[in-house]
Amino acid sequence: MTLGLALKKPHPKVPRRHGEGGKSHLTVIQGLAALSLDALSSVAYGPEAIAVVLVAAGSGALTAMLPITLAIAGLLAVLVVSYRQVIAVHPDGGGAYAVAKKDLGRPVSLMAAASLIIDYVLTVAVSLAAGAASLASAFPVLSDHLLAVCLIALFVLTVVNLRGIADSARVLMLPTVLFIVSVIGVIVVGLFRAHPAATVGTSQSFPAAEALGALLVLKAFSAGCSALTGVEAIANAVPMFRQPRVKRAQHTELMLGLLLGAMLIGLSLLIRRHHVVPRGGVTLLAQLTAGAFGTGWAYYAISLIVTLVLGIAANTSFGGLPVLMSVLAKDDRLPHLFALRSERPVHRWGVVALAVLAGVILVVVSADTQRLIPLFAIGVFVGFTISQIGLVRHWSKQRPDGWLPRALINGVGAVLTAVAGIVLLATKFLAGAWIVVLIVPLLMLLFSRIERYYTRVRDQLGWDGTPPRPTRTHSLVIVPLGRVDMVAAAALNAASSLGDEVVVVAVFGDRTKADAMRADWARWNPGPRLDIIDSPQHSLVQPVIGYVEQVARNGRQVAVLIPQAEPLHVRYRILQNQRGILMAGLLSSRTDVVVCLLKLQLDL
Amino acid sequence: MTLGLALKKPHPKVPRRHGEGGKSHLTVIQGLAALSLDALSSVAYGPEAIAVVLVAAGSGALTAMLPITLAIAGLLAVLVVSYRQVIAVHPDGGGAYAVAKKDLGRPVSLMAAASLIIDYVLTVAVSLAAGAASLASAFPVLSDHLLAVCLIALFVLTVVNLRGIADSARVLMLPTVLFIVSVIGVIVVGLFRAHPAATVGTSQSFPAAEALGALLVLKAFSAGCSALTGVEAIANAVPMFRQPRVKRAQHTELMLGLLLGAMLIGLSLLIRRHHVVPRGGVTLLAQLTAGAFGTGWAYYAISLIVTLVLGIAANTSFGGLPVLMSVLAKDDRLPHLFALRSERPVHRWGVVALAVLAGVILVVVSADTQRLIPLFAIGVFVGFTISQIGLVRHWSKQRPDGWLPRALINGVGAVLTAVAGIVLLATKFLAGAWIVVLIVPLLMLLFSRIERYYTRVRDQLGWDGTPPRPTRTHSLVIVPLGRVDMVAAAALNAASSLGDEVVVVAVFGDRTKADAMRADWARWNPGPRLDIIDSPQHSLVQPVIGYVEQVARNGRQVAVLIPQAEPLHVRYRILQNQRGILMAGLLSSRTDVVVCLLKLQLDL
Repeated sequence: MTLGLALKKPHPKVPRRHGEGGKSHLTVIQGLAALSLDALSSVAYGPEAIAVVLVAAGSGALTAMLPITLAIAGLLAVLVVSYRQVIAVHPDGGGAYAVAKKDLGRPVSLMAAASLIIDYVLTVAVSLAAGAASLASAFPVLSDHLLAVCLIALFVLTVVNLRGIADSARVLMLPTVLFIVSVIGVIVVGLFRAHPAATVGTSQSFPAAEALGALLVLKAFSAGCSALTGVEAIANAVPMFRQPRVKRAQHTELMLGLLLGAMLIGLSLLIRRHHVVPRGGVTLLAQLTAGAFGTGWAYYAISLIVTLVLGIAANTSFGGLPVLMSVLAKDDRLPHLFALRSERPVHRWGVVALAVLAGVILVVVSADTQRLIPLFAIGVFVGFTISQIGLVRHWSKQRPDGWLPRALINGVGAVLTAVAGIVLLATKFLAGAWIVVLIVPLLMLLFSRIERYYTRVRDQLGWDGTPPRPTRTHSLVIVPLGRVDMVAAAALNAASSLGDEVVVVAVFGDRTKADAMRADWARWNPGPRLDIIDSPQHSLVQPVIGYVEQVARNGRQVAVLIPQAEPLHVRYRILQNQRGILMAGLLSSRTDVVVCLLKLQLDL
Repeated sequence: MTLGLALKKPHPKVPRRHGEGGKSHLTVIQGLAALSLDALSSVAYGPEAIAVVLVAAGSGALTAMLPITLAIAGLLAVLVVSYRQVIAVHPDGGGAYAVAKKDLGRPVSLMAAASLIIDYVLTVAVSLAAGAASLASAFPVLSDHLLAVCLIALFVLTVVNLRGIADSARVLMLPTVLFIVSVIGVIVVGLFRAHPAATVGTSQSFPAAEALGALLVLKAFSAGCSALTGVEAIANAVPMFRQPRVKRAQHTELMLGLLLGAMLIGLSLLIRRHHVVPRGGVTLLAQLTAGAFGTGWAYYAISLIVTLVLGIAANTSFGGLPVLMSVLAKDDRLPHLFALRSERPVHRWGVVALAVLAGVILVVVSADTQRLIPLFAIGVFVGFTISQIGLVRHWSKQRPDGWLPRALINGVGAVLTAVAGIVLLATKFLAGAWIVVLIVPLLMLLFSRIERYYTRVRDQLGWDGTPPRPTRTHSLVIVPLGRVDMVAAAALNAASSLGDEVVVVAVFGDRTKADAMRADWARWNPGPRLDIIDSPQHSLVQPVIGYVEQVARNGRQVAVLIPQAEPLHVRYRILQNQRGILMAGLLSSRTDVVVCLLKLQLDL
């Protein structure tokens, strides 16, 4: 998922992020590499999610796998057609949030934002959990340490993204092609074999706990819908394509649909042909791989490729969520802090927030993909539905030629995804989906509260009126000093240039030092008055603040100029400057004076 | 251990810390409560340390316990006499570091500082580990979670000390008296019984692995010397006593010696009478308690008192180490940061450093007291020896009447503690004492390097010459603004008062906003020139810095005034101000201009 607000050329020094322009002229194939890994990689857990649900009715119930997969493929077809229209209508991209803000009003846009945030976080968690499972299929020794594998991978992704990454479609090309070739290879080779070439994993028994009724089929269908996540990414990032953008993006969407559909149906056919059932310690895809190629090098290679691609899929959220959060911050719906993304060097708060949330979720579910799938798919389907309802609204407002069939397609898409979403919610409510129902309104409330705060700030600061004209008043600059030295000289130079009047204040805990300072000052005789404060308890900062508070009472413009010597080498920074920073912070929070910092570079 | 630099009256708002004045007029009994818990509480682990060593020669070897304890009591007697002289000579207190700095020169004082730091850290670790063991003796369910108990207690101590604590001799009186009464009660009641009233813990077998030779006895002796730690605390804090200070402090030292000696010998006698050997899951002291009082309420009460007193002993380091670190910082031997102790609110870096180090050590040794004892005692004995050598040097310099016998007493004390220290080091070298041998010189090197840095800073800043007189130059104040509002008005008010010339700079990512700003500005017409910078990549901070760098080239005094709206409520702070702080930080590190911050308080 990427919001793809990619209209502006990035600063040359700022590493480019996924969906943010730069080499923002993708061909169809490059677009597939850059934007579809999230969707394509879901074949690694989607079919498995169906199988895990069905075996509740015994392993025989897996015969329902193919029809369910066909239904999902049908929904995929509707979504692809629908999103091709989204691409045409919103060539600027923007995702469900932008669409909802434009066509569906504030509450729906907040809902879209909330579900998008949930999705980004869950994409990371699901992809990492599935990636770890794939890795453990190849290396069983890891199967007791899935959570540790996930957390290490999460840590690596976080560090890489905090340092800034410069990914590009070209880099993603190879894993994409390898992944598609691998999965299609597994399907084709597997279908040619009458029996699996090899079996991996430990056998599990599946007593039929319930009948293969409508409810179970619905559950399996909804779980399998997790394979559709990521289908919206191309529509969100149309500006990244080479001209004619809309056409290329539409072709890419179509190719994604065809590939994803073919892979899902193919895997489903292969599962039926080889009578594959879930086994312990390995993924379904790993079983199919072993069935097609045996357990030689190809098995390890394909497992690693699947792991790699799932890792890249997790990484797309690290590109996408900060973009979304910065858009929300610009709309006053998140702290403006998150809008500082384009300022470097800056802590990427969005990256850290994403990593912490994904980490907590992985710990809570013990890195079990299947426990995340219900939560995951709901948010995605909320986004699908909102996007398509927005388009229906768009058609009915604009009414261009032939709008009715188009509105119908989007309407059918919206109804289908809404129904799928409701089915997901109903069937998985107790299995964890209730959390989503709880968190979405809480996030919406948070957005509203933040928006209200910023509105009140604007009111208070009179952003709509014309403020009074500035007036010049007599200015007094107070300079806290401890010694007569180069720092003092530099500080007084600056202070006497800035202030109509300059006063120096010095605080001493013992009389000898105070007397020495007085003597030095008299010898130097630089001009300004020296006020010495006695501080028997050896606090230097508090007395200065008290002094400034007293002096600042009458109408003058008071500034405090704090000189600081700063070493050149970062390793020495801990040795210098702490008192100045402390004083500046306290003066700023306790008084209304202007706090000025003057740095003097040391050659150290 | 407390350094007790207690000459100054504390600021009324600053919570008093142990050894820092305030109610700084202790009687003998109060002095015992405030300053001797660290030493007295070591009876909870000292005798056990002897026994654990001796059983290597079979449980029969415990017969050597009494003679070894008597030898330790003899050393204690020498130390007490010696420290009574330290009290007389150094009525200002100060500890081994201060004594060494005065009488023994720089390298020895660095060594004293290094071993004191190690001791403070280890006091925390040993006391907490012993306290957890005592608690687990009463509640066996905790015996598998000693480390967790320690880390929780450490966390609590850290939080309490970060918030500032106001402990006093009066508060410590009750646990001190309870502890002394409990231990003496255990000894007296126990000695009246022919057989233990009850046995706790699980029996362990002790095959005789080695003979009860001289080496083993030396090892046991050196381990038991850990019971002497804390004997120096009273001498370090003489200024805390009521007049006549020296007399009262000397009496307190004597009482401490008598109590500690009696308790050590008494426990040793009791161990012999009841044939107590180390057992699993309980401490030796808990066994003796059960032997005297059975396992009823008294057993639980005494175990809890011992735990409490050990916790308080750990807490004394939280009072002492930050004082030592601040003294070292004032002597340029640690970052000046640590000298900011008396400034509030400030992060107590010393407290955090202590907690982290003690936590790491506890984890490394799995909260096993016996593994810490060798490391612990060495540092203490280095301090003992340095203090006494310093005194010998003092006597031989000053030569007052009757100096020779006094110098002899301190000399004998120094030799004995030096020998004990060497024995400790030699016998425990491989058991972990090598770490101390490694860390002490490393710390000394660190102190030297830091000292050298500060000397070089002084040289560069010309602290000994007279700097040039300040000159007034034309001043230009640059004000970065984004809108015409109250913030802008306040900023221009301040800027026009401070600068001879004012320029406003605004950065916009898109043209519409820039045009709107130009129009607003023309309507307002406040006077200063408005420069608008185009920033297609939406970074606002970088372009301002570039602009300032260009403008700041010729000889004017340039200041950048950054206005910031600040909400009243802390919970809103995250929503405001981040860009201003970022800009101030970058301007300060990249340019030489004066960075001015103007806060505008919001009513929110």
